[in-house]
Amino acid sequence: MAGRTHGQQALPISFGIKVASWLAPLLRHAERLDEISLRLFVVQFGGAAGTLAALGDKGLAVTRELASELDLAVPIMPWHAQRDNLVEFAGWLSLLTGTLGKMAQDIILLAQTEVGEAGESAEAGRGGSSTMPQKSNPITSELILAIARTNASLLSAMHHAQIQEHERATHGWQVEWLTLPQMLTLTGGALKHALYLAKNLQVDAAAMRANITRANDVILAEACVFALARAMPRPNAEELVKKACQAAISEHQPLIEVVKRLAQAEVVDGAVDWQALAQPENYLGDTEAIIDGVIESVNSFLA
Amino acid sequence: MAGRTHGQQALPISFGIKVASWLAPLLRHAERLDEISLRLFVVQFGGAAGTLAALGDKGLAVTRELASELDLAVPIMPWHAQRDNLVEFAGWLSLLTGTLGKMAQDIILLAQTEVGEAGESAEAGRGGSSTMPQKSNPITSELILAIARTNASLLSAMHHAQIQEHERATHGWQVEWLTLPQMLTLTGGALKHALYLAKNLQVDAAAMRANITRANDVILAEACVFALARAMPRPNAEELVKKACQAAISEHQPLIEVVKRLAQAEVVDGAVDWQALAQPENYLGDTEAIIDGVIESVNSFLA
Amino acid sequence: MAGRTHGQQALPISFGIKVASWLAPLLRHAERLDEISLRLFVVQFGGAAGTLAALGDKGLAVTRELASELDLAVPIMPWHAQRDNLVEFAGWLSLLTGTLGKMAQDIILLAQTEVGEAGESAEAGRGGSSTMPQKSNPITSELILAIARTNASLLSAMHHAQIQEHERATHGWQVEWLTLPQMLTLTGGALKHALYLAKNLQVDAAAMRANITRANDVILAEACVFALARAMPRPNAEELVKKACQAAISEHQPLIEVVKRLAQAEVVDGAVDWQALAQPENYLGDTEAIIDGVIESVNSFLA
Amino acid sequence: MAGRTHGQQALPISFGIKVASWLAPLLRHAERLDEISLRLFVVQFGGAAGTLAALGDKGLAVTRELASELDLAVPIMPWHAQRDNLVEFAGWLSLLTGTLGKMAQDIILLAQTEVGEAGESAEAGRGGSSTMPQKSNPITSELILAIARTNASLLSAMHHAQIQEHERATHGWQVEWLTLPQMLTLTGGALKHALYLAKNLQVDAAAMRANITRANDVILAEACVFALARAMPRPNAEELVKKACQAAISEHQPLIEVVKRLAQAEVVDGAVDWQALAQPENYLGDTEAIIDGVIESVNSFLA
Repeated sequence: MAGRTHGQQALPISFGIKVASWLAPLLRHAERLDEISLRLFVVQFGGAAGTLAALGDKGLAVTRELASELDLAVPIMPWHAQRDNLVEFAGWLSLLTGTLGKMAQDIILLAQTEVGEAGESAEAGRGGSSTMPQKSNPITSELILAIARTNASLLSAMHHAQIQEHERATHGWQVEWLTLPQMLTLTGGALKHALYLAKNLQVDAAAMRANITRANDVILAEACVFALARAMPRPNAEELVKKACQAAISEHQPLIEVVKRLAQAEVVDGAVDWQALAQPENYLGDTEAIIDGVIESVNSFLA
Repeated sequence: MAGRTHGQQALPISFGIKVASWLAPLLRHAERLDEISLRLFVVQFGGAAGTLAALGDKGLAVTRELASELDLAVPIMPWHAQRDNLVEFAGWLSLLTGTLGKMAQDIILLAQTEVGEAGESAEAGRGGSSTMPQKSNPITSELILAIARTNASLLSAMHHAQIQEHERATHGWQVEWLTLPQMLTLTGGALKHALYLAKNLQVDAAAMRANITRANDVILAEACVFALARAMPRPNAEELVKKACQAAISEHQPLIEVVKRLAQAEVVDGAVDWQALAQPENYLGDTEAIIDGVIESVNSFLA
Repeated sequence: MAGRTHGQQALPISFGIKVASWLAPLLRHAERLDEISLRLFVVQFGGAAGTLAALGDKGLAVTRELASELDLAVPIMPWHAQRDNLVEFAGWLSLLTGTLGKMAQDIILLAQTEVGEAGESAEAGRGGSSTMPQKSNPITSELILAIARTNASLLSAMHHAQIQEHERATHGWQVEWLTLPQMLTLTGGALKHALYLAKNLQVDAAAMRANITRANDVILAEACVFALARAMPRPNAEELVKKACQAAISEHQPLIEVVKRLAQAEVVDGAVDWQALAQPENYLGDTEAIIDGVIESVNSFLA
Repeated sequence: MAGRTHGQQALPISFGIKVASWLAPLLRHAERLDEISLRLFVVQFGGAAGTLAALGDKGLAVTRELASELDLAVPIMPWHAQRDNLVEFAGWLSLLTGTLGKMAQDIILLAQTEVGEAGESAEAGRGGSSTMPQKSNPITSELILAIARTNASLLSAMHHAQIQEHERATHGWQVEWLTLPQMLTLTGGALKHALYLAKNLQVDAAAMRANITRANDVILAEACVFALARAMPRPNAEELVKKACQAAISEHQPLIEVVKRLAQAEVVDGAVDWQALAQPENYLGDTEAIIDGVIESVNSFLA
């Protein structure tokens, strides 16, 4: 399929490496959650001002027992007005929905009529309309994206709420009440929707190839430059391919054909394997190894 | 000094435990930075679409060499459109300034004319005014607080920017350019200002004691309830102390005197050590052990 | 009472002008709402893509009838993907809660134990605690403040949601669903709480005067400078008052007494009306006229 | 061209109505600026605590003279701690860049390789790359979009900064210093970039038509439903068009041909003008009148 930068076809990629790029951050989020959990699951027990005074000299002992009872860790000190662990967790929620939101954004773009490389599901009528039956709106991805953006703004409130006064704040925790539960709920929703997509996503390989062809294979420009640069000076190769791209587009010809024609005089027969060059599949670099690396990491994580 | 909840005197605390509560999150931030650094200092090298195609089958090998040259780690895959590590780092910056902002907020509140328990420095004329020479505005804390709130909002832009399109985004990185450098600069500024405060903060122990006295020692109400509850039923103790608080305030008498008087009929001689009860220093619970724990952790960290 | 800048006593003010400063922005909000309403209460009717094509050549006529039926105005064109009016309204909600939040913040600060100039209500036990009966936490103001800060962050999501794609967006309106209703609900809550405060706020005039006295009347420093400057060069006056402030604080003497003593040699008898100068009430400038102006505007608005 | 909802072709529109939808909010922004200016261009003059005490009984008179000198209005009262006018203005800046951001987002989507209906300019090599000469990245729109999102987050800081303490805040104005100037600068940049686009935007009408054709004219589904509904029961019409859409896509046939064939048995000859129905230009409803209305408003504004 087309690898796209700035919304434009840039270089060939495989759909697999795109999925890998959705997966890789999830692995890091799992790693982060492990780290955060050690800080998050700690007992908060300190009395009104964090001194445990009501318990005389038994405060720390009671804290330890309570933590043990609740299966929580004992913090370095009571943390009623130190909200960094909660705020960090809220940040994690938004990091996670941001990653899901990136996937959702990609799917929405791939599901555009003119692109047509992906659909959310094979369910008939999903995301449709009675008078516009041609529609199949990516409604699940839209919800995920809406959640990602809402979390990205709610998070700001949590960070403001970190600035708490003295031993117990005047309003910071009320801000948390208004914010953190909905961030959690929204994130749960986004995960559920993402799971639906993971199970139902429809991919159209033919459309992926056709979109490249329809753009006259100009996505192979970089491949051409590097191939020609082995047979002529690099600046000449760049110049030639640039001209070829313009011609390919204006004459609606496959780029490799045009390049072959323009390069005829300068490139000796056999110096370039034109047939191989014409296949986007041959310009994928280390794609397979990269995907394998991600899959291996996923497997390690799941093991 | 008074431990304050909701802006009101609640229970006695020591200034040391307040400082410990400023320190404890910094230890966690150091821990976080260690974790984040492993994800942050990774090479980004993938070509335009993340396939390393221009390098043929040598992409991963070159990546490893480049990373080694730059003293960076090798990521699971090229991450041009996976911004979670940068966003996480921005979150860390805001977590850090949030902690400094909480300290700054506390100092600003302690420096209020009516509280007068802390001043930013002994420098003459600092934060002053020509026609209002009595002023000594907490200008350094104000800057830290302003930075904390600005970072808390800028962070939101970084999280929105995580939602990037395809293999290279259309505008997400430009948002990062506008946001991350100033977050870094602001955080550096906040740290510098915090260091100034750490070195120059003026604390007025007499004012701390006087503020408790002026409030008629009602901060000892909880201590009274627990002391009396050993000599009478707890609900009666609560009822009695409640009345005593009202009387102490309206008659401007020290709470313990009032409680002693009201409890005369119900509490046998010697059941309560009234003199000890009258000292806020005796109702600090595990304060010393808590502070020692934090200092020990700081020392471990610095070691 | 003390007018406070940077949390410190600066110049005398009356409580009335503080209330006026809470009121004045509300008048502007009412003005804004009038302006916004003209843009907000407009019909949205355009079909899926805003062309009204399903109605043939009767689209605009039907729009006019529909608007008339719904008592809404007719917009310049269907506005399904133009969200500025909704976003502007969300901004108004946050402007309003910001103003109420400023009032709430002031009340919280005035209700601090050491300041004690205001309480939220005379209801017994409100904002209290069983073991700390001395407490009277400003819980209503805290809720308002929490709402103001939450709205300030939610608003950001609405502004992001303004960036909608083509004729009907992919996720922007879902962000609005998650955001605008809660902003409205929160604002309604803040208004209800503010009304409670308006009816129940307790003000302690004696405490206001006492706080000034306890700070040794140094709040009169500026008044002194200007009074002395009529009897000696201004720089000398500033220098003298500066010294007097330090002495007043360290010797715990009323500023005017100290100034009078220090100025004895330089100021001829009768040049300064020391008795008048000692009254903070005499250094309120145009306070009364300012308050009258605001009340007049409120009356005009209510008329 | 295709009117798109949820990223999918929905109904035919003209490019003109899309431009009108970019323009209409700008007219409202101009209206808003007029309203806001009346509140914004007011003198701030109040002394340290807003009482004008240093001027004795001449405060308001001096205020009026100063305002007149500066060509500013006189506010209802000094507003040092009432920031609503500045915050409202910041909101306006973000509303404006949000509108420009929506235009930029549309252009970025139209400039995608597979859509190809618009380009930012005819300048050769703009937004290009040496090894990928086919690229013409929409870099100007990207900058506008990045600004819109940054402003949307910065605005949140301004709203938080509205919550100022007492007569002069502790840190709120420093937040404004960090925020408002960059919002203004960014908005100026966005306007400059938008002007460039307004002058240089390249539109490809043939591509607009071709995109509809390539989607087998299914964008005419709604038109078909309404046309058939005049010759058969509406549910039957919907059912028939639904089937036709599926067939048109799977057989890669123009929708109207398929509908005509499927409807043969049920629709009497001449009941539907198939030739007219096949022209997207005939299903634009009140588009022309709508555009004229916007142009008229623009002309009135400019007059």
